Amino acid sequence: MSLHSIQSDFAAHVENRDAAGAILLVCEHASNAFPAPWGSLGLTEAQQAAHVAWDPGALDLSRALARRLDAALVHAPASRLIYDLNRGPDRADAMAERSEVHDIPGNKGLSAEDRLHRTEALYLPFHNALHAEIARRLALGRVTVLVTIHSFTPVYHGRPRSVEFGVIHDADDRLARAIVEAAQRGTDLACALNEPYSAADGVTHTLRLQATPYGLANAMLEIRNDLIATSEMAEAMADRLAPVLQSALAAVAEV
Amino acid sequence: MSLHSIQSDFAAHVENRDAAGAILLVCEHASNAFPAPWGSLGLTEAQQAAHVAWDPGALDLSRALARRLDAALVHAPASRLIYDLNRGPDRADAMAERSEVHDIPGNKGLSAEDRLHRTEALYLPFHNALHAEIARRLALGRVTVLVTIHSFTPVYHGRPRSVEFGVIHDADDRLARAIVEAAQRGTDLACALNEPYSAADGVTHTLRLQATPYGLANAMLEIRNDLIATSEMAEAMADRLAPVLQSALAAVAEV
Repeated sequence: MSLHSIQSDFAAHVENRDAAGAILLVCEHASNAFPAPWGSLGLTEAQQAAHVAWDPGALDLSRALARRLDAALVHAPASRLIYDLNRGPDRADAMAERSEVHDIPGNKGLSAEDRLHRTEALYLPFHNALHAEIARRLALGRVTVLVTIHSFTPVYHGRPRSVEFGVIHDADDRLARAIVEAAQRGTDLACALNEPYSAADGVTHTLRLQATPYGLANAMLEIRNDLIATSEMAEAMADRLAPVLQSALAAVAEV
Repeated sequence: MSLHSIQSDFAAHVENRDAAGAILLVCEHASNAFPAPWGSLGLTEAQQAAHVAWDPGALDLSRALARRLDAALVHAPASRLIYDLNRGPDRADAMAERSEVHDIPGNKGLSAEDRLHRTEALYLPFHNALHAEIARRLALGRVTVLVTIHSFTPVYHGRPRSVEFGVIHDADDRLARAIVEAAQRGTDLACALNEPYSAADGVTHTLRLQATPYGLANAMLEIRNDLIATSEMAEAMADRLAPVLQSALAAVAEV
């Protein structure tokens, strides 16, 4: 029973809330929905389907990992181009006017009121719901480890990327280093720490906001999206990554 | 207009929401209310009126500062003995069985469900509402500095305390050091950094949860409660502290 509730037309999606595993999965870029009142932001259908709008494959991979790890999963209800849930409302790229090579017409010249409306409609319901999941678990004495799931493009600004699996940390690098070590030991994935970008690029907002204040072990995972282009490929990737995460979890718990 | 709302019988109290000043004041121990369903927790009326239940004078001082600084103020609706809003739900002292020399009968042997219920009834509505205030201000591009207001007892475990005004920091010490410097220069208060306790005692949860993720300058103020024992004394203390805070704010903004 909860005496309070967070109501929004764009609430966070929470799956497997009562799963018994220690890992809480988060997928901030799960969706390429462009719901009213914002609509398509002037983007073509091809743009709406592309990486600029979301992380293709990340939700399929998150769900496949959730089943294997008995993990709860919190994911986004709308495109990151309406509001990028992995950015604070003080950041221009929370509602980007331009992303990689794409202009975002519907994000040009937003007023302060536009930014406030999206913050209240999308950012706050998502992060307050995620905060509620974490607080509930802590109140019940449950070990909680935060892992965010992202995907990245094989080619960025015309340059191919050779890394297949990137693991990014913020202030606390325990889990990220354990994951890289387990992946390099147990898989043939081209795995690297803080690739294809790092906390210095401002990509660790969710970790800072949700995990660091409670001292929760945490990491951000980035999978190259050509490796999880279909749901079958995402399942196969989850078969490879689930043992890596379990091994890293055990390593961190031992310390 | 907000598409979401946080509903609770014990919502955070928000005053002067639209105040123009940069400082956002927070008073987590403002209240010695013992509402149903918890009631008095088996405490005497004297205990319910004493420092163990709340920070006497802190709300009066917070309101007096809010007027002088044109600041918004978020404060607690219930006693810290039901839930200490400056502690995460993983902390035993969020719902303390014993505090200083007092046993808290109603907090003995709480079940996980009891802890969850209080977390959902008090902790989450308070901190998600405070988060909403901060996020709204950031979306609007408003400079935001977080200052929490507390009071402490002149005598603790039988030992008198000579410090009158303590300023406590967490990871970011900019504002706290500027306040101490301004207080030592501009007042005759016995002022000290990280007295009568410090972040190492686990007292900076609100700063960590709400200010640090956004890089907001922040500090926790502790005033000896015999100096703010009446509303007139709190007003007089605000006359002394408001210029100190304004001066410190200017010093931090210059950096």
